Amino acid sequence: MTLVPPAAARVGDSLATVGTPSLLIDLDAFDANLQSMATFAAAHGVALRPHAKAHKSSAIARQQVAAGAVGVCCQKLSEAYPFAAAGIASIHISNEFVGADKIAMAVELASAVRLSVCVDAPGQIDALGRAAAAHGVTIDVLPEVDVGQHRCGVAEPDALLKLVDAIAAHAALRFTGVQAYHGGAQHIRDWTARKTEAARTAARAAQFVQALDARGIRCGVVTGGGTGTVEFDATSGVYTELQPGSYLFMDGDYGDNAWQDPARSRHSLFVLSTVMSATRRGMAVCDVGLKGLAVDSGLPRSATWARGSSGPRLTYVSANDEHGMLEARETPEAAELDTTNLVGGRLLLPPGHCDPTVNLYDEYVCFRDDRVEAIWPIDARGLSR
Amino acid sequence: MTLVPPAAARVGDSLATVGTPSLLIDLDAFDANLQSMATFAAAHGVALRPHAKAHKSSAIARQQVAAGAVGVCCQKLSEAYPFAAAGIASIHISNEFVGADKIAMAVELASAVRLSVCVDAPGQIDALGRAAAAHGVTIDVLPEVDVGQHRCGVAEPDALLKLVDAIAAHAALRFTGVQAYHGGAQHIRDWTARKTEAARTAARAAQFVQALDARGIRCGVVTGGGTGTVEFDATSGVYTELQPGSYLFMDGDYGDNAWQDPARSRHSLFVLSTVMSATRRGMAVCDVGLKGLAVDSGLPRSATWARGSSGPRLTYVSANDEHGMLEARETPEAAELDTTNLVGGRLLLPPGHCDPTVNLYDEYVCFRDDRVEAIWPIDARGLSR
Repeated sequence: MTLVPPAAARVGDSLATVGTPSLLIDLDAFDANLQSMATFAAAHGVALRPHAKAHKSSAIARQQVAAGAVGVCCQKLSEAYPFAAAGIASIHISNEFVGADKIAMAVELASAVRLSVCVDAPGQIDALGRAAAAHGVTIDVLPEVDVGQHRCGVAEPDALLKLVDAIAAHAALRFTGVQAYHGGAQHIRDWTARKTEAARTAARAAQFVQALDARGIRCGVVTGGGTGTVEFDATSGVYTELQPGSYLFMDGDYGDNAWQDPARSRHSLFVLSTVMSATRRGMAVCDVGLKGLAVDSGLPRSATWARGSSGPRLTYVSANDEHGMLEARETPEAAELDTTNLVGGRLLLPPGHCDPTVNLYDEYVCFRDDRVEAIWPIDARGLSR
Repeated sequence: MTLVPPAAARVGDSLATVGTPSLLIDLDAFDANLQSMATFAAAHGVALRPHAKAHKSSAIARQQVAAGAVGVCCQKLSEAYPFAAAGIASIHISNEFVGADKIAMAVELASAVRLSVCVDAPGQIDALGRAAAAHGVTIDVLPEVDVGQHRCGVAEPDALLKLVDAIAAHAALRFTGVQAYHGGAQHIRDWTARKTEAARTAARAAQFVQALDARGIRCGVVTGGGTGTVEFDATSGVYTELQPGSYLFMDGDYGDNAWQDPARSRHSLFVLSTVMSATRRGMAVCDVGLKGLAVDSGLPRSATWARGSSGPRLTYVSANDEHGMLEARETPEAAELDTTNLVGGRLLLPPGHCDPTVNLYDEYVCFRDDRVEAIWPIDARGLSR
């Protein structure tokens, strides 16, 4: 007897039989999100290079490219491997890296795909340039500039020019533009304040481009932007390429932003959970905790009964490793409800933060109406080197 | 060319060449923790059934059993499969479950190992009893009693007696005792307050045992306790079996407890990280964020330079998906330090919470002195059904 856990779901299954916890994609919402971003980027004449760290699935990356994306971003070199293996021809590593093992990965990837990488220190450039030359590959290099995030990236145009000079010293490296990403701007709740910060971000990026211009250096690519700001970045006149990731799924954190339609994506990602215990009035315990939901950006904002289940409205109030605590809180009387009949009921929980939640699962169970239509491996799960 | 990421480490490697992020075990500390808990349980005549949710690795479970453990606990049925496949002969599912797919897993596991499970509702018992009989297996059943956690478990002896009666109605089920676990008590910081709450917990468990006694029902097993309370549980006269998990690793959260030696375990679990960017004074960015560190119980309490690296003392101050932000904060002048020379430096980060951090990785890189001595697969990673 082989002792391996049975599959959680098979294509054709009713959602009612899918094992829990499972990570679900509502395909109607997902398809709409996928298409609407592709249409939006095309309409504004900017390239779309979605961030694959959000979904970590080559099956999804292929759909993004089929819908018009120029390629994908990855946040780590090891993360890029499944996408390269799946035939995604253009991959941008939107992050710095250092060390011989990382350089070796970059060179290997560059032999299979058009690879671009970020740098913000001369030492990173020299090591990469020597290795690329030794292996006969060419790598596009985009210095990262700090446009407000104060994380990675050079803060001043002079430092950028030094990096461009360092790149130019290596025949195997090609300066193609800059990365100008401001993660903090994505999550500014107020729409107008977010718009204002996006404009400031673009203006900072423009200063770097102008400094290059003044030196006669063409900056072909300005890449950046995320789900929260692409509606502004696309019309900034500065960004040539957009990197949104979460738009496919939406999550609790992005749901807390104020949006003006139609920029708001629909929630397409849910953790399916089962109530496994309910011994106290007004409370229940489900089978999804810290190992099935990332809580860095808060708990699920809602808990909706899946088709076939019903009960009072419950609030997910705390997470242990494998337990989720739920309370009936809608009315003062709710705390006195007998909840014992809720055991076995199934709940849809939208994650507070999609990226690290996706990183907990090995597959998406994709449904339409009540039927499992596809199962997509999360083939870059755990690849953080 | 096969496009798969290279191995992060190989046995015999120096720690200096291990790819980052990697999850490290310091074997000297680990071995000491493993032995000291085994010795402690044996000295007090209580069974040790360590919780495998903490490590999710059959390689570790085998060592625990070799050191005297009677078996392991798992928190989910699917989690138990790799342990059963690896020959761990006695597995306790320390949690409730519901649904036909879960019952099928229990029955399959019970055909391979001595399986015990928790229940707190009659419906769970009846479905399990029928399935076990149909498949010719016997399952040990331990009702969970609520001894202060207010999560799962029955709150009153009368409800326990009803569960015992329901178990007795099924020839394929065997009542063997109760589970009495109080997770909240584990993390009470003050040693005396924790001792007091552990005594209350044991007293509550004793009330359930007495109610069974009064009905002439022998309660052979009282299982529970965790890393924070085993020193009290073992001498309570109530607990017959202890379930600690984190003692192998220690973590930031348990490190915040006050301890009286020798009950305190040593930190043996670390995430190895590399500084990949440092463009601003007094700050640096490492390559471990939310996808390499669970932050539900706080950020790493320390960041120690690995052998071969050095620099000012840094504090891990915030985590993005794949970035960890570090600041030099030890002196007012530290904020003005030029940190550019720290790029490439390597840091050891003890996780705030070991269990969900382990669930992010596929393997442990185990070292002694400066050498990789073993690589242990985390074969139950992601198995939360």
